[in-house]
This record gives sequence, structure tokens and C-alpha cells, in this order.
Amino acid sequence: MTSVRNVLFVMCDQLRRDFVSCYGDSPVATPHIDRIAAHGVRYANAYVQSGVCGPSRMSYYTGRYVASHGATWNLVPLSAAEWTLGDHLRASGRTASLCGKTHVLPDSETLARFGIEIESERGALLREGGFVVVDRYDGHTPPGPESGYAEWLRARGYDSRDPWSEYVVAVEEGGRVASGWNMRNVHLPARVKEEHSETAYMTDLALDWIRARGDAPWVLHLSYVKPHWPYVVPAPFHRRFRGKPVGTIRHGPQDGTSDEHPVVRAYRGHDECLSFGREDVARHVRPAYMGLVAQIDHHVGRVLDALEAQGRMRDTLIVFVSDHGEFLGDRGLGEKELFYDEVVRVPFIVVDPDRRADATRGSVDARFVEGIDVVPTILDALGLPAAAHRIEGRSLLTSIRGGDSGPWRDAAFSELDYGFRRARRTLGRGVRECRAFMVRTAAWKYVHWEGFRPQLFDLAVDPDELVDLGADPRRHAERQALRERLFDWLATRRRRTTVDDALVDARTDVHRGRGIHIGVW
Amino acid sequence: MTSVRNVLFVMCDQLRRDFVSCYGDSPVATPHIDRIAAHGVRYANAYVQSGVCGPSRMSYYTGRYVASHGATWNLVPLSAAEWTLGDHLRASGRTASLCGKTHVLPDSETLARFGIEIESERGALLREGGFVVVDRYDGHTPPGPESGYAEWLRARGYDSRDPWSEYVVAVEEGGRVASGWNMRNVHLPARVKEEHSETAYMTDLALDWIRARGDAPWVLHLSYVKPHWPYVVPAPFHRRFRGKPVGTIRHGPQDGTSDEHPVVRAYRGHDECLSFGREDVARHVRPAYMGLVAQIDHHVGRVLDALEAQGRMRDTLIVFVSDHGEFLGDRGLGEKELFYDEVVRVPFIVVDPDRRADATRGSVDARFVEGIDVVPTILDALGLPAAAHRIEGRSLLTSIRGGDSGPWRDAAFSELDYGFRRARRTLGRGVRECRAFMVRTAAWKYVHWEGFRPQLFDLAVDPDELVDLGADPRRHAERQALRERLFDWLATRRRRTTVDDALVDARTDVHRGRGIHIGVW
Repeated sequence: MTSVRNVLFVMCDQLRRDFVSCYGDSPVATPHIDRIAAHGVRYANAYVQSGVCGPSRMSYYTGRYVASHGATWNLVPLSAAEWTLGDHLRASGRTASLCGKTHVLPDSETLARFGIEIESERGALLREGGFVVVDRYDGHTPPGPESGYAEWLRARGYDSRDPWSEYVVAVEEGGRVASGWNMRNVHLPARVKEEHSETAYMTDLALDWIRARGDAPWVLHLSYVKPHWPYVVPAPFHRRFRGKPVGTIRHGPQDGTSDEHPVVRAYRGHDECLSFGREDVARHVRPAYMGLVAQIDHHVGRVLDALEAQGRMRDTLIVFVSDHGEFLGDRGLGEKELFYDEVVRVPFIVVDPDRRADATRGSVDARFVEGIDVVPTILDALGLPAAAHRIEGRSLLTSIRGGDSGPWRDAAFSELDYGFRRARRTLGRGVRECRAFMVRTAAWKYVHWEGFRPQLFDLAVDPDELVDLGADPRRHAERQALRERLFDWLATRRRRTTVDDALVDARTDVHRGRGIHIGVW
Repeated sequence: MTSVRNVLFVMCDQLRRDFVSCYGDSPVATPHIDRIAAHGVRYANAYVQSGVCGPSRMSYYTGRYVASHGATWNLVPLSAAEWTLGDHLRASGRTASLCGKTHVLPDSETLARFGIEIESERGALLREGGFVVVDRYDGHTPPGPESGYAEWLRARGYDSRDPWSEYVVAVEEGGRVASGWNMRNVHLPARVKEEHSETAYMTDLALDWIRARGDAPWVLHLSYVKPHWPYVVPAPFHRRFRGKPVGTIRHGPQDGTSDEHPVVRAYRGHDECLSFGREDVARHVRPAYMGLVAQIDHHVGRVLDALEAQGRMRDTLIVFVSDHGEFLGDRGLGEKELFYDEVVRVPFIVVDPDRRADATRGSVDARFVEGIDVVPTILDALGLPAAAHRIEGRSLLTSIRGGDSGPWRDAAFSELDYGFRRARRTLGRGVRECRAFMVRTAAWKYVHWEGFRPQLFDLAVDPDELVDLGADPRRHAERQALRERLFDWLATRRRRTTVDDALVDARTDVHRGRGIHIGVW
């Protein structure tokens, strides 16, 4: 028996773990996210399965590693054969609803091959990754027919064909309108009022939707596009942190030097790293990023207040995560990807309303958890089948309720495919030769880069990952041992997905009973 | 320009390489298969991707390793998202037709999820692995509505609800009908005449079909269910080899001893190994197996004669392979699976009618080829797109035509999932803990077994794989190097299948041109 009736799965886009105050030394206070942590369990070592939106989210939504679901980068659709949270829920007569961003791309080739119209009910589900859309809004794709935000803005006086470009991510100075794409402008406020911003809109929508459910059970993915770029912040959040401390800007001893890892060095040629490589840029952008974080925190507070007012804190499982972090000038890098903790280690909090979870409220769990653990945790909380032949993550529920969840993973894994990035051409790689695999244990982080030497960090003495031991002859044994871990991981991915484990067990050694008398004298 | 207009892709089921006389020391002469070899290129080191029908065939039909297509054993359907030969041909307006066995199982879960009726045209294609069925016939599944063989037999006087069980694999002695499942009976002739046997029926059907095509181009998979068990042979082939030499019955020094590999030892508890572990059983069954081989060879001769008579040898690519071999008592083992050459190294011959291939006719190619090379060879011969984002095999055509196909693979790979076998229970393994991966290089064969020590054979001094060095402390370095090979192989499987390589290349580093101005100051 579980008391969980509803699920609120909140995701932020590009929210760094160390810009959330319950995670320690954050330059921005996030009292409301901290409130979630006070109600639940905060995971100190949570990793995403890729340091970029698409593959990370497809892992969150399927409970499977990127090597298993195959959507290796932002522009790679998730195969229609993959099951998402929505599919698992639907198999038990429930639905997963969506307010916000998913980054799901339709597997158009398969839809066409199967003759499924994308406008049909099935087509829409496959196009939307199994979510039933309240309003999908992916942000930097200009609001089109798929989102209600543009029309909503126009109804509020933002008269434009493309109110996102003209108002949401635009700024104004001395009567001149300028683009928020240019980071030099992000000290100026957005041309929308705060209550008309993306974060406010999506919060309002979600709260209206939850209220409208009444006492009917629901599962909602509230997925904020912020604090992802463009770093344009509505007033008054745009100036809250201007001139304030922005956190340490971490420099690596290897920044750009010839013995730096070749892929990292190639990334330095990307626009975002050329800009963020200048410390003045990082110092100019960080207060805007912090403003976006503070604004999200404010709206998270509204969500919590509403759930409390409606009595929904008693029966709602809350999952709060980010799809990845970002560099913000650390290591002279900008944006995301690669495998440093700024990017792949994320905030990750779970609130279980069940009374059995009371003992762990406000606690910190230091075990490795991964984005793939969200779906199995939700299914477990709702008492639905675990689908262990597909889902590679594990439910966190037993431990949240103070139980013994058995031997737990002692490593986290993440992947990257930089085939679409300029770095691929810089390095002269083919489109299928750009895969990387990370394993992070308690003591080490190791990254296998196809065609290049690995990266290795000794986290006990170098928690900031500043000294790459990937070519250090004294560390051969450690590299070998971590490569073994990756081997075992690669060899055990769940690719037999068309039959479940129970069927394999039930049909083990049964051919005689089915009239197949092999090898009988 | 290629002169190839038609493709005849012939597969035998369970035909051992060393029971084909062009491969050397065979106890049975196969003059017609040898004729194919005389017209084309015979591959001396051809490996299948699994030593059992289902996964091996799914690799043949998709051009992908088992780790990529996921159909890990006989009872695991191929995912509807996989593209088979038929799908690749259809994308170019052509079709792949089928006479015989495929072992394809429908991915019913996906069909239901996508609302595709299995009786619809799309459903039928997905049920049949992309083949357009002339007559599908999988053999030991009793002929049901899916095959015309049962009705064809009845029309010829074999009056029975199940003429397969009562006539095709039944024998008669002293007026008493006995089952051919019992290997003790296989010295007796089948209760069908030779011209009504499975092999004769499927050959007739294929020849009628080819004749009916006239000058229209075609692609046909002629897939014999023999010499697969039950080892019941029609007269006169049933007695041709009785009392004749049956080839060496190879014994291993480790047969059943406690230091034998645990998985191999567990397989010895299966019925087929308990029977074939007795040398008298192997000596009794081999003449029947050889009779089935000789019979297939006879019908292969009819096919070649027909193609010659119709002028089709001038424009038909012929591929002749087996889906795997079998032990026949070697090593005290019966049946198939595991990774010994008796099972995973197969006959593999390609005839290219193009004049440019004249220089290689009758030659032997010792490079490693794999079952996954068939689809890309066919597509290449027909001038169709290579689909390199999905297909992991390589076309053999360039080398057949005397060209330089560039650096070639220096290893072959095969896999096993014994989750459905009794051995799993003997060993106390979970259903997802039974995967094995083989790498075979020029000098070594190495098998990674999940949860157990590996197997290692030094083929230079031990070509018969009799001495397992998998635990030999002096061979640590070799094992490590081969494990590295497997690591690189596992890390480079083609799982990004929803977009092709050209799209990745075309969309590399193009976000600026699409209005996404990341990281611009």
C-alpha cells in the first residue's frame, strides 16, 4: 500500500547543482528548492546520462542509458520502439501529462514506415515521447503552433509574429531593442514582465491544470526551459545579483595547453568557449544565470504553496532534477557536454509523501543515483510493473522509506556523442567515431574517448578534476580497472526488449513440453 | 554499372562447414555446392553472429550484430524498429521474396502499441521480417496455415491433420510407425518420398517462382530447413552413408572434467549432449545428417541447372551460407550454441555474375567474413544505398571484383544468450545474466562469459580448440588484449539508427545558421 496518488516530476534545464543552496556553497539562495529537500531526500551524487539536453532527457524519460535508447544527441530522435514514462503508465491505464520542455523529436522514419499519421492520437503520443501535452514548450525553438505561449503573450499585449524573439529574449536600452542571444546584453531586463516570462507562464499553467484535476490522480512533468540560455531575465531578477559574488570561477592548469585532452581542447574552439574563456564574460553572465535560478526558485515556491493549500503534499510524489548543468566559464569553458561535475552532476531531490518516508525527510543520500532512476521510482511509487527488461535504473523508494534496497551501484555512467559538433571536424573524426563513455566511482572519474587517450581524475586528491591523469604512466593500473568497469557495463546493457524477463523464465527449457524433442535417443 | 539484376540468397539450417566438400576433408561429397564455389569466391573464415538459428538469422537479415538488433535467442522477436533486407530493398522500390525458413517472430507488443493488425499488409511484412512470402516454412513448427507444405502433402496422398509429424519426420519399421525425433530411428527412411520431402518441395517452389518471374528482376531467399533435426532422411539418401566413414569425432581433454569451463559443463546436462556424449549415438546419427546434406546438394544442383538453362547465371548474384553448424558428438556435445568452430564457422560462398568478378572465380578468400556481410553485399550488388548508420557488415563486392576494399576487419565476433536454456538454472543465473561475447582473431579465440572466467584458445598450436587457456596464468596478457578488442567492439555498435550519417554530417555545427546563437558575446 502506498499513499502516493500523484506525481510531480519537475525538471529544470541547465541548472547547476552548485547554484542550488541546499547543495552547499551556492552564490544564489534557493529557499524553495531547499524546502523540497527539507521534505524529502537530497541526493548528493546524482549524475545524468549525458551532459546535453536530448540524450539526458531521453534517459530520464525511458529509464535507460543512452547506449540502450540510442538517441545520442539533441538532433537524434528517440526510436519509436522505446518505451517512455508515458508508455509505462498507459499500459496500466494512467497517463503522463506535460507542461513544458521535453526535447523529444519524432521518429519520423518509423512513423512513415508503420503508416502512422503524426496528427493521429498514436502519432501525437509518439511525437511527444508518450506525454499527453497540456502545453509543450521547448524554449529556443520559437513558439510555434505546438505551444500556447505565443498566443498567450499576444493576448497580453506583446504584439508580434514571434513574441519570443521580440520580447521574451529581447532587451531594450536607450529605446533600442537588442537581442538576448548576445551575452553582452544580459544585464538588461527582458522585454516581458516577470509574470509573463516562460517560467511564470509554465507555472501558472501547471497550477491551473493541477487545480482542475481536483481529487483525480495525476502524473505531471513540469519542465522549465530555464535557466538555459538565452540568459535574459525579467525584472526585478535581472539585477538582483549584479555586482554580487558569482561563485568561484575555476581554472584548470591545462586550459588550452598542448597536453590537454584533445577533445576538450577542440571544444575550446566552439563559440561558447571562446566567449566564456574570457573571465569578464563569465562575470557578466553569471548574475543573469543566478537571476534565472532565483526566479525559478520563486515559482517552485508557488507550486509548493499551492500543493500545500490543496492538501496535495499528502499524496504527491515530487521529483526535482535538472537535465544537466553548465560551465559558466569554469575551466575556461562555456555551455555543456564533456564530463566534468559542473555539467553531469546535478541537483536531484525526491519527496515521498508516504508516512514510511518520514524518517528520511531532510536527509542526504550520498549513493550514486542517475537520471534513469526517475521512471522506476515513479512506477514503484504508483505500484506499477517495473519492466526490468527495459528499465536500467532502480527505484529509490525502498531506501527513502528507510528500507534496505540491497547492494547499490558503486558507480555512475554518462555518455557523449559529439558527432554533430564542430569539434568533430577539428579532430577529423567521422560521424560515427565520436562516442565517449564515463564511469565515476567513489574515488575516480574515467572517460573513454573513441580514438583518443582517456581522461582520468583522482577525486580523493583532486575533487575539482583539475589534473588529468589520463596519460600518466603511474596510473596504468587504475585506468585498466576502470576500463574493466566500463567493459562490464557495456556488456550488460538491456537490448533484449521485445520479451520481458518473466517470459524468458517461463519459457526456459520448455521445448520438450511443446513437442520439440531435441537430442532424444 | 553492375550486371546483377537478381539475387538468390540460399541458406541451409545447421549445415556444418566441414561437411561441405569444397571446404576440405568432408565425409560427404557436395559436388553442386562445390560448383557454386567454382563459380565464385569461397570464404574460408566465415563466422555467424550467434551459434543458434534466431539471432544468427536476424543478423543475416539485418546486417547487424546481435548486440545491436537485440533478438538474442530463438524466442526473442526482432524489434519492429529494425530494418531487414526486405525493408532496405523496399525503400528503393524492390522486394525480397521468401521460400522457406526465417525464424522471424512478430514483435507483437510493438504491433499492438502501434495499432498495426498482423493480418494487414504492414503487419504481414513485420511478421515476416520484411520478406514477401512465397511460402514460409520453418520446419519443426508443424505446418500450419502459414505454410502450403501440409496441404501440398495432402494433395499427394499423405492424408493427415499433421503430415509433417506423421510422414515427413516419421519412419516405419515392421509396419509400426515411429518418430524421427528419436535419434535411434534415423537409420530408417522418412515416410515421404524424396520428391515430397521438405528440401524437394522448397526447391520446386523456388524454381517455379523464378521461372514465373521471366525477365523481371527478383531477390529470393531460398531457405532450407535441413540438415537441421529431426534427422529423418528420405530414401535413398537415408542409407547412402550407413556404414561409411563419418568423419573424425573429436574429443576434448576436458570433456566434463571439473576444470572445464562451467558453461560448457552445464551444457553437457542438456538432452542433446547426454545423447551425443555417447559415441555410438554420434556414429548412428552422422550418416543420416550426411544423407540430408547430400540431398540438399542434389537439389542445389537442380537450382543451378535451372538458372543455367534460363540464362540467369549471367545476371544473378548467388549467396550460399548456413545459419550455424552443429556438434554431432564432437567434444561429447550435441546440437549447437557455444563458440566452437563446428558451430560458429560456416560455409559461405558468393557468386557475382559480373565480368569484373571473373578473375576471382573459384578462389578462396581467407579474410574474416560474417553473416552481417550478406545484406550490404546484396545492396551493393543492386546499386542500392548502404545505410551505414544501421548496417554493421561490409560489402564483399569490391574484393570479389578484384578491387581493393581497404583495411578489412581482422577479427570476427559472435554472441550467445543462454537465458532460455537449462544451463542457466544449472548455473543459478538470472535471465539477464547469461550473455557471452566471442572475438576470433587470426591467432586466438576468446570468449567473455558474464559471471565466469573466459575461454581462450591458441589457434596457432591448437586449431581444434581442445586446450582452454582461459584460466592459464601465463596467458594473462593475451586475454587482456582480446578483452580490449571486445571493449572497442562493444563501444562502437551502431545504436543511433533514427538518423543516417549524411544527416549528422549535414547538421554538424549548423545551429548559427538556424537562428541558435549559442555563446555569442
